Amino acid sequence: MKHPIKAVARLVAGFARLPGIGAKTAQRLAFYVLSAPPQVAHDLARTLVEARNTIKYCSHCGNLTDVDSCMICNDPNRDKHLICVVEQPRDFIAVEKTGQFNGTYHVLQGALDPMEGIGPEELNIKNLLQRLQTETVTEIILATNSTIEGDTTAMYLSRLLKPLGVKITRLAYGLPVGADLEYTDQYTLIKALQGRVEV
Amino acid sequence: MKHPIKAVARLVAGFARLPGIGAKTAQRLAFYVLSAPPQVAHDLARTLVEARNTIKYCSHCGNLTDVDSCMICNDPNRDKHLICVVEQPRDFIAVEKTGQFNGTYHVLQGALDPMEGIGPEELNIKNLLQRLQTETVTEIILATNSTIEGDTTAMYLSRLLKPLGVKITRLAYGLPVGADLEYTDQYTLIKALQGRVEV
Repeated sequence: MKHPIKAVARLVAGFARLPGIGAKTAQRLAFYVLSAPPQVAHDLARTLVEARNTIKYCSHCGNLTDVDSCMICNDPNRDKHLICVVEQPRDFIAVEKTGQFNGTYHVLQGALDPMEGIGPEELNIKNLLQRLQTETVTEIILATNSTIEGDTTAMYLSRLLKPLGVKITRLAYGLPVGADLEYTDQYTLIKALQGRVEV
Repeated sequence: MKHPIKAVARLVAGFARLPGIGAKTAQRLAFYVLSAPPQVAHDLARTLVEARNTIKYCSHCGNLTDVDSCMICNDPNRDKHLICVVEQPRDFIAVEKTGQFNGTYHVLQGALDPMEGIGPEELNIKNLLQRLQTETVTEIILATNSTIEGDTTAMYLSRLLKPLGVKITRLAYGLPVGADLEYTDQYTLIKALQGRVEV
């Protein structure tokens, strides 16, 4: 049932349009916002508009940025010979969190998914080819997700880029840290066996 | 890790301030908003501000409203002799959904919770007493939640209101429709036994 007051119904609908937010959660959020101090609603509205107006994609690497090109592309301390290719801006955050990568990124803004009509043209691949032509890149790390779409994208990119003579690597597959063999799914275990290293 | 771009970090923090939205979900929502058409962010911001500015509590029953007093208090077709007391505006929606109640509401805006410092003064009880003095009320249905706080509130209200000579009822406790006895918790079953009715 829609809330009988239109402004409330619209707010519930607004929240429900966000991914992963169902009707119940949307209603809970709306009632929270309406019972909280007005500042809560106004602050959230302001940050929404501010972020949407200032954030765009870096024309160089495709990551989110408030300046063009982005802070990582502009950072003289980052190793420009190394490009880590990720699907989404959120994946860049995951890699940065490790604190172990000092190269640059290239954000594809998706993964190949023929069923959804997402082909190479829909991804930020042209810019990557351009970077390879104008910059001295020694290694490209394919850090797409370990899913069918991510694997397909990595395979496509490796075939596309290998002829250009650049070293292509892929993140290692295997047991996550802390994993119990007993509870590890067979596909991960197969990958761990295939990728076994000499000790 | 906070996002290195401040506007993004602020948006993530803005979402994370909402109840039940953790850091991961907040990040997902923020990235969605930034990758969706600008209209999505602007629409949500507008509905937030619009709802927060127009919605207030009805000075009569305490429900959310955009006019004072609210559409239910103003509705000549609602039975003014019957008041259904609920904790929150969301509970009013639940009762309305049944389509079986044609009385008016009184929204307490909470439940007694001494551990959280919520006593009778913090709830919308004074207005309820005033309504009983100025209106002809024949029955008050205590529809607080079936929780410790809800039960405490119902018991408090019944003791407070009984001396005024009004009929006080409470929602029935028992098995939910479709329940399996095997999987019903013992407390619900005890209530169902205690409240058994002759067939």
